[in-house]
Amino acid sequence: MNGSREGLGPSSVDCMTETSTLGSIGETATLARIFPRLPASSAQLLGPGDDAAVLAAPDGRYVVTTDMMVHGPDFRLAWSTPYDLGWKAAASNLADVAAMGAVPTGLVVAIAAPADTTVSFLEAIADGLRLGCEEMAPTCGVVGGDLSVSPTLTIAVTAFGDLEGRDPVLRSGARVGDVLAVSGKLGAAAGGLQLLFSAGMVDGEPSVMAGVNLRTEHPELVGSQLAPTPPISDGRLAAIAGATSMIDISDGLALDARRIAAASGVALELQLAAIGGRQALDGGEDHSLLATFLPSATRPGGFREIGRVVEGSGVLVDGRAYTARGGWDPYEDWNGGRG
Amino acid sequence: MNGSREGLGPSSVDCMTETSTLGSIGETATLARIFPRLPASSAQLLGPGDDAAVLAAPDGRYVVTTDMMVHGPDFRLAWSTPYDLGWKAAASNLADVAAMGAVPTGLVVAIAAPADTTVSFLEAIADGLRLGCEEMAPTCGVVGGDLSVSPTLTIAVTAFGDLEGRDPVLRSGARVGDVLAVSGKLGAAAGGLQLLFSAGMVDGEPSVMAGVNLRTEHPELVGSQLAPTPPISDGRLAAIAGATSMIDISDGLALDARRIAAASGVALELQLAAIGGRQALDGGEDHSLLATFLPSATRPGGFREIGRVVEGSGVLVDGRAYTARGGWDPYEDWNGGRG
Repeated sequence: MNGSREGLGPSSVDCMTETSTLGSIGETATLARIFPRLPASSAQLLGPGDDAAVLAAPDGRYVVTTDMMVHGPDFRLAWSTPYDLGWKAAASNLADVAAMGAVPTGLVVAIAAPADTTVSFLEAIADGLRLGCEEMAPTCGVVGGDLSVSPTLTIAVTAFGDLEGRDPVLRSGARVGDVLAVSGKLGAAAGGLQLLFSAGMVDGEPSVMAGVNLRTEHPELVGSQLAPTPPISDGRLAAIAGATSMIDISDGLALDARRIAAASGVALELQLAAIGGRQALDGGEDHSLLATFLPSATRPGGFREIGRVVEGSGVLVDGRAYTARGGWDPYEDWNGGRG
Repeated sequence: MNGSREGLGPSSVDCMTETSTLGSIGETATLARIFPRLPASSAQLLGPGDDAAVLAAPDGRYVVTTDMMVHGPDFRLAWSTPYDLGWKAAASNLADVAAMGAVPTGLVVAIAAPADTTVSFLEAIADGLRLGCEEMAPTCGVVGGDLSVSPTLTIAVTAFGDLEGRDPVLRSGARVGDVLAVSGKLGAAAGGLQLLFSAGMVDGEPSVMAGVNLRTEHPELVGSQLAPTPPISDGRLAAIAGATSMIDISDGLALDARRIAAASGVALELQLAAIGGRQALDGGEDHSLLATFLPSATRPGGFREIGRVVEGSGVLVDGRAYTARGGWDPYEDWNGGRG
C-alpha cells in the first residue's frame, strides 16, 4: 500500500487556504493552472488548445466509453478528496476500456463546479487524474476537456482505447465449458461504502473527520471505495490470452456475471469459496475484470478461477440459482444535502 | 424555415402527461426507451450495449472534442424544450469537429437529470440529437452514453470526427495576405438571447409563455439561440479548399478572431459593412465557422469574405484596433432559480 494508491492525496483542508476561485479568476486562468498538471497521452497528435484534439488510432479503430460522476448520487465531498475524485473518474472509465481488451490511450474530462470552487480543488482533481493514469495506464493522458459552472459538482469523463489489431472482447462470447475468472478485488469497495454509511456519519450527515478516521483504520476498504485501483493492464493481457468474454464489475459480481450470461446465452456457475462470501457477490464499484477463458488457456496477470460456464441461464452459486438483485446503493436515498 | 430547424419540437407541455420518470422506472428501462430514438453512426463498428463502443478511424487518426451544458448557466428550461437541448448539444460539438476540417462521425452523450424527470423529456432530448445530426451531419450518430441522477440537469457530449487523410485546420495557420471569411450567421443567437432576457421574463423570471410568444414572433433570432444550425459540412469543404486556419465562433466573432490572430501571430482586419454591425462582432453562440484562405482560393460552401489577414496583432475593424471583450452573458448572473 503506498500513498498514491490508498492514501488521501492532497487533503481538502489545503484547499481552504486558497482564495482564487473558478468564479473569481474565470475559466481561462483556471485552465492555465490545471493544464500543466494533466497527464500526457502517447497517442496524442494534437492536444488541448484548438477546437478539438487529434488522436492516433494505429489499427484504424478506437474504443470509446463515457461515465459521469455527480455529487450526491455518486460521491460525497465530506469523504472524497478532489484527488480521489480525479483518480476514481479515471479508474472507472479506464476499466471500461480495459474490459474490451484495449489499452487506454486518452481521456477528455468535462467538469462543472460551483463558482466558489477553489482553483486548488480543481488542481487536485487534475492531480488525481494524472497519478491515476500513471499508476493504472501509463501511456494514457488527458487530451481535452471543458470547464463549466454548476451548483452541482459533476465530472464527465470519456475514455479512448487501442485494440492493437485484436477483436474487442465482448460480453457475448462465453461458451459452455469455459473457465470463469476474475482479476482485482471483490467486495472491497462495497465494504468501504458500508463502513462510511455506518461509521462515517455524524448526526445523520457525512462527516469529514469520521471519514478520515475510518480511512486510517480501514485503508484497504475505504481506499477501494474512494480511489479504486482496478487491474487495467490485465484487460489487454486477457485479450491476448484469448478471453472469450469480459466485463468490468461496476454493479457487483452477480449482476455483471448475469450480463455476460444473458449476452452469451449461457449460465455462469460461481464457487462461493473461491470468491470469499456474499459481499463479494453483491458489492459493486470494484471495477475488477470478469472474463471467461477456454479451459486450455493460461490465466494471465492477476486472473484467478472462480467458476465455470455451464448450460442454462443466469448465475448459479455452488450449484443453486442466485437471483438476488445484488448491489447496495445508499446514494439512491441521497437527501439532497451538501455533505 | 422548417419545423426541424427553428420550430419548437415536441413541446414541454407534452411531457406533462407522462407519469414514468427516471427515478420511478430506473436507468435500464429509461435507456430502453431512449436507444431506438438515437441516430446511428456510419463509423460505428460496435454500438451501445457493451462496456465501450468501437468506432472506425479510416486514416488512423480521429478528432475529439467535449462540451458540457448546465441548466442555469447554459440554458433555461422555461425557454429551451428538451428537443432544443439535444439539438444544441449536438450542434455545438459538431461545430468544434467541423472547425478542424473534419467530418463528424460519432457522439457519446452523458446526461444527469433530476429523478423526477419524465422519460418523455429524455426521449425528446434524444429526438433533438437525432434530428440535429440528420440535418447537420447525416453520417454522425450516438455511439454510447451514460445516464445519471442529479439535482442539476447536465448534458455532456463528446464528439468525434474523421479528417479523411487531411491535416487538421488549426487556429495557428493564418498568414498575412490571406482572406478572412465566415460561413453561418453572425449575431443571431445573441440577438435571440437578448430578446429572451428582455421580453421573455415575467416578474424577473424566465417565462414559458413569454418565450413561446417571442419564438413565434422572432423565429430566426430565438431559434438561432435555442437550436442553432451551424454550417457543419462547410468545415470539410474549407479544409479541401485549403483553409489556412479555422475556428468555431462560440464566444463572438471579435473574441474568436482574436484567438486566430494570437495563435497565428498576425492581426485580422474586419470590414464592419461585410459583417453587419456590432451585434455580429460581439454576439456568441452562433457556432459559425471563421476561416482564412489564400487569396487565390475559391471560397467554398457558404463562406463569404469579411476581411483580411494583416501584420500586427489582435483584431481591427475598418482599420482601427477593436479591443472590446465582446460577448454578453446574462447567464453569468444566474440567480440559481429553477426557471
